[in-house]
Amino acid sequence: MISTEQDGPTVTRRFTKRSADTRAAILSAARARFAADGYEKATIRAIAADAGIDASMVMRYYGDKEGLFRAAAFADIDLSGLAVPVTPGSSPDLLELAGRIARVLLANWESGENHVQQLLVRTAFTHPESVTQLQRFLDEHIKPPILAALADDPDADLRVGLLFGQILGILASRYLLRLEPLASADLRLVEVAVRESAELLLTRPIRGV
Amino acid sequence: MISTEQDGPTVTRRFTKRSADTRAAILSAARARFAADGYEKATIRAIAADAGIDASMVMRYYGDKEGLFRAAAFADIDLSGLAVPVTPGSSPDLLELAGRIARVLLANWESGENHVQQLLVRTAFTHPESVTQLQRFLDEHIKPPILAALADDPDADLRVGLLFGQILGILASRYLLRLEPLASADLRLVEVAVRESAELLLTRPIRGV
Repeated sequence: MISTEQDGPTVTRRFTKRSADTRAAILSAARARFAADGYEKATIRAIAADAGIDASMVMRYYGDKEGLFRAAAFADIDLSGLAVPVTPGSSPDLLELAGRIARVLLANWESGENHVQQLLVRTAFTHPESVTQLQRFLDEHIKPPILAALADDPDADLRVGLLFGQILGILASRYLLRLEPLASADLRLVEVAVRESAELLLTRPIRGV
Repeated sequence: MISTEQDGPTVTRRFTKRSADTRAAILSAARARFAADGYEKATIRAIAADAGIDASMVMRYYGDKEGLFRAAAFADIDLSGLAVPVTPGSSPDLLELAGRIARVLLANWESGENHVQQLLVRTAFTHPESVTQLQRFLDEHIKPPILAALADDPDADLRVGLLFGQILGILASRYLLRLEPLASADLRLVEVAVRESAELLLTRPIRGV
């Protein structure tokens, strides 16, 4: 907000709106750059150019590169499509849940629009803040729909961890590292494999095997 | 090699031996540093200090940080324990193969001694050379024992890619990112899950499901 007292309420609103638009443009450009280039190679200059504004404006809003990165790495992600409806009196449909996990997460990455998730995985191996946000993503978006469906299973937490690890590896290999043959594999076949692996992890006994 | 003509063969051998020891010490220190810190944060100064030699010596052998990194990222890794013995006339034992994949790779990472693999995964998301070496690791160490066991399966390649992606994700989440609950999970339970997931990927139909 850059209004002064004599600007009055109208100008304040106008400036606030403009400020929000500018911040949104900066964050959008920052997410795309950090997702593609990682933390070290992405520069404030390049991000400002992508957003069509001056680099000094980026510094004014976010202080420095680390401040910009923290703002870019934090986002509300909508993965509400993961949760399966629970019918009172009947068991949650774990096969349906496995199908949703495979479909929703793959569609999310296949779109290429999920820059926040991309930047978290891209930078987590060298930037502690991204590990914190990745753990938060796991705890807030992946764990709840699975725990809700697994109810009293004592291994529910472990299943979540294994499932997240496996899918993270598939997505990172295919979309970020582009390792072959996974990068060029037919999406439908990958989805089948992810779904079946998720089914296995959600349903098979883990202990005493 | 730093011998001159008048040094004669004895001195040459001694210097060559010393040179090989120095190179080995540098590479060992470099692998540990790149594995722990990634490419950008690891410095030649710190690596030289770890190896107990002067930084100028590191430059003399490897030119610059990129040259040192390339040497450190390249290594012969012994994963011969993955291959299952093939008895003529009988089908390869895919369950045995799945068990070996889980056991050998987890033991490898559990030891913490596998710095080359750690550095490849740690840096692959921001350093193209590591992707090249990771693909080579996949092609030379993971693919052959699996293709040998799967013989005429038209989806053999895809199975290798999926399996590698899944296990990469488990290993990276547990040992590098230390995401919970996987980081603290009981090794035996993780091994069971990795083995069963590998069995599934090696044995279930992928097409037409």
